[in-house]
Amino acid sequence: MFSTQTDKSSKKGLAILGSTGSIGTQALEVISRYPDYFDLQVITAQKNASLLVEQAKKYKPNCVVIGDESAYERVREELWKEDIQVYAGIDALSQVVTYQEVDTVLTALVGYAGLRPTIEAIKAGKTIALANKETLVVAGELIRDLAREHQVEIYPVDSEHSAIFQCLTGEFQNPIEKIYLTASGGPFRGWTRKQLEDVRPEQALKHPNWSMGAKITIDSATLMNKGLEVIEAKWLFDLKNEQIDVIVHPQSIIHSIVQFEDGSMKAQMGLPDMKLPIQYALTYPDRFPTNFPRFSFLDYPELTFEQPDREVFLNLDAAFEALKLGGTAACALNAANEVTVQSFLDHKISFLDIAEINCRVMEQTNFVQKPDYEAYVQVDSEARSLAKNYVEKAFS
Amino acid sequence: MFSTQTDKSSKKGLAILGSTGSIGTQALEVISRYPDYFDLQVITAQKNASLLVEQAKKYKPNCVVIGDESAYERVREELWKEDIQVYAGIDALSQVVTYQEVDTVLTALVGYAGLRPTIEAIKAGKTIALANKETLVVAGELIRDLAREHQVEIYPVDSEHSAIFQCLTGEFQNPIEKIYLTASGGPFRGWTRKQLEDVRPEQALKHPNWSMGAKITIDSATLMNKGLEVIEAKWLFDLKNEQIDVIVHPQSIIHSIVQFEDGSMKAQMGLPDMKLPIQYALTYPDRFPTNFPRFSFLDYPELTFEQPDREVFLNLDAAFEALKLGGTAACALNAANEVTVQSFLDHKISFLDIAEINCRVMEQTNFVQKPDYEAYVQVDSEARSLAKNYVEKAFS
Repeated sequence: MFSTQTDKSSKKGLAILGSTGSIGTQALEVISRYPDYFDLQVITAQKNASLLVEQAKKYKPNCVVIGDESAYERVREELWKEDIQVYAGIDALSQVVTYQEVDTVLTALVGYAGLRPTIEAIKAGKTIALANKETLVVAGELIRDLAREHQVEIYPVDSEHSAIFQCLTGEFQNPIEKIYLTASGGPFRGWTRKQLEDVRPEQALKHPNWSMGAKITIDSATLMNKGLEVIEAKWLFDLKNEQIDVIVHPQSIIHSIVQFEDGSMKAQMGLPDMKLPIQYALTYPDRFPTNFPRFSFLDYPELTFEQPDREVFLNLDAAFEALKLGGTAACALNAANEVTVQSFLDHKISFLDIAEINCRVMEQTNFVQKPDYEAYVQVDSEARSLAKNYVEKAFS
Repeated sequence: MFSTQTDKSSKKGLAILGSTGSIGTQALEVISRYPDYFDLQVITAQKNASLLVEQAKKYKPNCVVIGDESAYERVREELWKEDIQVYAGIDALSQVVTYQEVDTVLTALVGYAGLRPTIEAIKAGKTIALANKETLVVAGELIRDLAREHQVEIYPVDSEHSAIFQCLTGEFQNPIEKIYLTASGGPFRGWTRKQLEDVRPEQALKHPNWSMGAKITIDSATLMNKGLEVIEAKWLFDLKNEQIDVIVHPQSIIHSIVQFEDGSMKAQMGLPDMKLPIQYALTYPDRFPTNFPRFSFLDYPELTFEQPDREVFLNLDAAFEALKLGGTAACALNAANEVTVQSFLDHKISFLDIAEINCRVMEQTNFVQKPDYEAYVQVDSEARSLAKNYVEKAFS
């Protein structure tokens, strides 16, 4: 099953940051199918202590981290019979990723919280399987430079970026001319701004093709997810802004496309199932056999493509604007968006408010052209405050 | 422009067999754009002496071969001022491909005639850029074994097989689960047998998407071209028969698809333009920048897919049957088809007769399960005779 390029002598040690989320739970399913290949070292959760305990009992990692320190005693008690170390708190995350037994860190945390442990993992020379796109959105330049300095590979888990990565395999010497990130268009594709005025969270949480966490599902409905992916792609694949295009493809079968300098295009396709890109990021350059359902052209006689409506879905334009501005612009945009999406889910602001506030916050937050880590932290914090102010105004 | 993997110290010496045909002329256009990379050693033509002379004067090969010996004096005379060797006759083809200065042989001959020079080129250790699919159709097993024995690479030029090959780059360690060869469906897609009864050669020569030679254009209209490609794919990529599927895709944008054992599919796409696969076969693993027109999703908002109609287009079934039978079955089918297509172009038989006669000839020709080269020659000859008999009966 394994290629000659794979080191069969030792298993691949894994740390899964965010094991109780959508990506994390699917990752555990994936790796449990290949016990001879993977060695689960670490799983972590922010709040969901009971699922973390359940996972620890089932998948037997060497170590768990619960972010919420108030749950520490409970987790430790429940796991005391198992031979599993238990830690708590945000600092522990940044320590466990550096363990010698860990080869690859899957960063499946939600939002900005993924940044610091990812930086620590890179500094410790670990391969990164990146599911936390915010890491690259917030601090793409810093992460890229750090990965180069430590000669660390970052393998994408996002289905679109995995598609690009799969198409680039064997072609790394050939310059990219352009990439097309495909977008489903979300549940409100074709809607007018007028129609979007009264959208409720329950509607926005119904994604037509993908089953994902709440934050990313709302981001898909506002097209902010695609905007964040544009920024992520820039840093992952070292592209100029004008080399990145977005095309709406409602069936979500073609997951993205690369165009090379000879004009040839390669696309990666398949049924929408996050387990595939998760697995590929962990087994690259090999592919392991799966029993995932297979795509059939008979079920999809038409694959369609259209331009995204940037006048309705302002977030996508905001992301391209952030790319153009560079510096901390994307960090501010992302911070604002984390606040506004949560506020929308809490029924504090309207669907259209999300992008409106995001744009205003990006414009008004202090801008740093050449930020270091501390500058990102400060801009993130400032943008969150600004966004919260706007939310309060809208809510009151 | 060139990758570090490319040997920059010496140019790639090329022999183009069939330089005056559709593939040959396009190949000359391609290589003339990269004079620092390619060194044109040999061009050959069967009959078109005037174009061969024109090409020789323009592209300055070291050597030309005119298959038609009666044209030898004329070609020699016209080229006597150039420093170009001139040879004639079919045996000369098999000699020039072995020249030391030749690294890669592009086999762009039409039909069965490509077999012998391809065998000689493989024996001489030359890389093959294979545009003559009949070589693999007629004697796939022999060619595959010979290529292995002489450690020779065969790079496909057919757009579908080039697509598969491009998708396999970097994935050679990963087993193929399945391939989908796409078919435009030709000019008679959706027609009934009744409608096809009175089809004239002029109609069949109008391919909706591709501009190609007469033989292959008729083969596209009867779906025999796709059938031959199925057989070609089996030997090129070492597949089981049930791993090969054909899907009709009228826009000819997705040129073919590979499915791996993890369920992931990769497709190669672009505007239909043979120059791209020709160039890729000659520059692999590198891609050289081109100014070929680029594909835009805005021009193709819908890509559609449907099953081929095997009850109307019997040739496709015949090809799968030939695969199942193995041995010399495909050789007989191909020989019959070369006769029937020419007879159709000569207005001697009807469009539907092509497949009818092909099937009967394949069934009635002596069958050899483990053929050597001589057995192929004999079966080819017998099948041609049988086919000609059927043509005469139909014509009289």
